[in-house]
Amino acid sequence: MAGEDTTVRRRGRRPGGQDTRTALIEAARAVFGESGFDGATVRAIATRAGVDAAMVNHWFGSKEGLFAQAILKLPFDPHELLAELQNGPDDEFGRRIVRTFLTRWDGAGGEVFQALVRSVAGHEQAAAVLRGFFQNFFTKVIGGLGSDRVELRTTLCASQLVGMGLVRYVAKFEPMASSEIEPLVTAIAPTVQRYLTGDID
Amino acid sequence: MAGEDTTVRRRGRRPGGQDTRTALIEAARAVFGESGFDGATVRAIATRAGVDAAMVNHWFGSKEGLFAQAILKLPFDPHELLAELQNGPDDEFGRRIVRTFLTRWDGAGGEVFQALVRSVAGHEQAAAVLRGFFQNFFTKVIGGLGSDRVELRTTLCASQLVGMGLVRYVAKFEPMASSEIEPLVTAIAPTVQRYLTGDID
Repeated sequence: MAGEDTTVRRRGRRPGGQDTRTALIEAARAVFGESGFDGATVRAIATRAGVDAAMVNHWFGSKEGLFAQAILKLPFDPHELLAELQNGPDDEFGRRIVRTFLTRWDGAGGEVFQALVRSVAGHEQAAAVLRGFFQNFFTKVIGGLGSDRVELRTTLCASQLVGMGLVRYVAKFEPMASSEIEPLVTAIAPTVQRYLTGDID
Repeated sequence: MAGEDTTVRRRGRRPGGQDTRTALIEAARAVFGESGFDGATVRAIATRAGVDAAMVNHWFGSKEGLFAQAILKLPFDPHELLAELQNGPDDEFGRRIVRTFLTRWDGAGGEVFQALVRSVAGHEQAAAVLRGFFQNFFTKVIGGLGSDRVELRTTLCASQLVGMGLVRYVAKFEPMASSEIEPLVTAIAPTVQRYLTGDID
């Protein structure tokens, strides 16, 4: 997994632009903090970062994408993540999702997930951005797997993944909080797999 | 469902004591607010409510139980809930849990669940009380069903139920947010049933 990860990063990111990305994230934290989500403009964030506004689309796709990285601190780039997860058999997609979710958020630190839950519970806008992220991501995944009822399946996946994060990182409920990753993958992946491709009605 | 509910309440609660219970909940909100969880004593809460301290154990089992009702506002009494859920075939236990969870929290209003998540994300003590509630409740349920690995199964159930609540009531992710209860029961109950009695490793 660590090996795959490095390869994907090398392919997907250009070292020269990493400074621009970092500068945009720092500027976004300041501008979202001062102006809120609706008040913050892409132009204001780019100006504060000293880069062209087109760089926001280049690096984050949209203002929402920048918010997801800067404020929600999602520990993955959605495009890289999709490419990484698509690499394997369809009937193990659930395993790869659960394993990657845990690996990335374990790596980011539990307090990052805790801050995300606080944002989502306290701010309608943060909830909307998280919804948008899940919607975008799982629409592609579930569509790619050829399943019906994409919207319901998306929310079912979200319910299990967000709940797993809440129990592991926020409520810190043992043994899930301190468990190795693989036993949780074994226990939870069949749920996510069923929500992706199995019988739900 | 509504019919069952009324019967259980009539059996379980004595109308004469309901005033005492309400007074204790109001006093608890004041005392927990002033003194925090650790600083608040059962005696101080009972004194404020003008009742004997033994009434806390009688109505709530413990200081934690009172906190769960007064601050987390869990929309059920754990003892009544267990009796209600045990009423039916073992292989439909997951269905009854998901249906009851949604029925009770829909009834309480989504903002009650939102406040619970905020408490748990912001206060270690609230997280500990919620953990204790799940632990107590699911230890009895899973033990009663004769399954192994009670602690892991408890956290797996918690992850799916809390995640479902978060998506429906807090992130308000459609179509789960506005769905009728039964389609969600059909989609999610097999997950909870597997966590209760099925193969998890």
